[in-house]
This record gives sequence, C-alpha cells and structure tokens, in this order.
Amino acid sequence: MSDPIEEGLLLSPKFDADGLVTCVVTDAKSGELLMVAHMNAEALKRTVESGEAWYFSRSRKALWKKGESSGHTQRVIEMRVDCDQDAVWIKVEQHGPGACHTGRRSCFYRAVPLKQTGAIALQFRDADKTFDPAAVYDKK
Amino acid sequence: MSDPIEEGLLLSPKFDADGLVTCVVTDAKSGELLMVAHMNAEALKRTVESGEAWYFSRSRKALWKKGESSGHTQRVIEMRVDCDQDAVWIKVEQHGPGACHTGRRSCFYRAVPLKQTGAIALQFRDADKTFDPAAVYDKK
Repeated sequence: MSDPIEEGLLLSPKFDADGLVTCVVTDAKSGELLMVAHMNAEALKRTVESGEAWYFSRSRKALWKKGESSGHTQRVIEMRVDCDQDAVWIKVEQHGPGACHTGRRSCFYRAVPLKQTGAIALQFRDADKTFDPAAVYDKK
Repeated sequence: MSDPIEEGLLLSPKFDADGLVTCVVTDAKSGELLMVAHMNAEALKRTVESGEAWYFSRSRKALWKKGESSGHTQRVIEMRVDCDQDAVWIKVEQHGPGACHTGRRSCFYRAVPLKQTGAIALQFRDADKTFDPAAVYDKK
C-alpha cells in the first residue's frame, strides 16, 4: 500500500523536534537559490494563507515576516512539499535588492572548493552587495 | 568589524544541536531542486574530499553515500555555503533516472495551493515516476 505521507494529497508537515520544517527559497523567475530558512506551524500557515513568506528564526526564537525590517518582502508564486513532508520549497518574487541580511541578493555567495582536505578556504562568488545592510536595518 | 562567519573565507560550518547542516541539492544543468538532505561533519568532509554526495540520515541515524543502494549517485559540480554557514548548496550531476526514493527525479512533486485555510489538498506536479523504486531498492 502506498504511503499517505509520500503519495497522499493531504498536507501533513513533519515538524522536527523543534517544531520546524526546512524551507528552500528560490527566485521564481531566475531559479536562483536565495536562502534557506525554517518555518514552524504558524509561519507555514501564515505563508499559505497570505501568499507572503513568513519564517521562524532559530536564533531569535521568533516568528518573522520576511521584509518586516528591511522592506524586502517575498511574494510566494508557488509552494511545494517534499516526499516525506519535512521540507517545503517556495518560489518567490523577491521585492527589493536582495534576500540576504548581509546585503546580497542570495545568501550563497561563497563557494567551497572540492577535492580538498584539511582547512578549507572559501571563494567569493556572485558576492557583490546589492544594498547596504547598515542603511536598511539601522533605520531610526 | 565584519563578522568572520559571514564575510570570512574559512569554512566554519555551524552544525545544529544534532550535529547537522542542511544541504540543498540542485541539478547543475537544469537548476531544478532535486532534494533537501542533511550532512554531519563526516558527510561534509567526505563530500568535499571525494566530490561525490554523502549525507547523514536523520531517520536511520547513519552516514550514507547517495546512490549506495540505488546506484543513483551524485557528482558535485559546485558547492556553496550560506551566510551563517548552517546550510550548504550543492549543484550535482545526478546519475540515473532520479534523486527521490519514491521513484521520481525530484522529491518536490506536490504543490501546496496558496490562499487557503484549514486542511490543504496537495496537487501533483511533475510527479511522473522515472523509475520503479521496488525494482531499484529491493534487488536481492
């Protein structure tokens, strides 16, 4: 018999011990990976209901709407769930110049060289800043 | 002063309480999101050193090489790390017909409709099976 979690049509998120699922965020137009974040049940519910991305911050232990500080909100164009329902994927329209709090479009701006042993020296890739985080986040 | 984790060039993975980082896996050619998995320090080390994808299974609590049962290995074309170094992204050459243990190319074969409340009915998308998992995994 087929597994209802994998083959069924009822959304049944498998939250981890901290009550979270992983969320992969890509640009709906370019396909670029923008960020990886987490959602608790409330963030997932708000995202589905509103079509705007909400997350749960593991460091701040708080629900947050993407863009609430920066204005760089994300409109969800499509959401998908994976086979075992412990990860979701949202394709978003990223408002403003970037998704990363460091001032870049994507959080993935450093490459890890392969076929290496020992300490690994990262290499910047697509790392130009598209906005000044100090100006965006330190508004009085 | 800039944060060495975010702006530095030393790979310093921030493993969670279970010793894991999240790994996003995309097809290097098409850009398609194939799967989301986890890596512990050993899986990350083996992936970097070998250029082949290794993961840590949270359900089986075991290190595994992608494709060790199915033959559907993944050659890593590029690896990146995110701003706070708790997630990595690998672009892979997927060998064989698919990455998902359910018999599909990608694990993300169901869409979550938006602007809904209450119980959510998923919709199959790109859900055709590209291989028969029973034949691939139940080999004697």
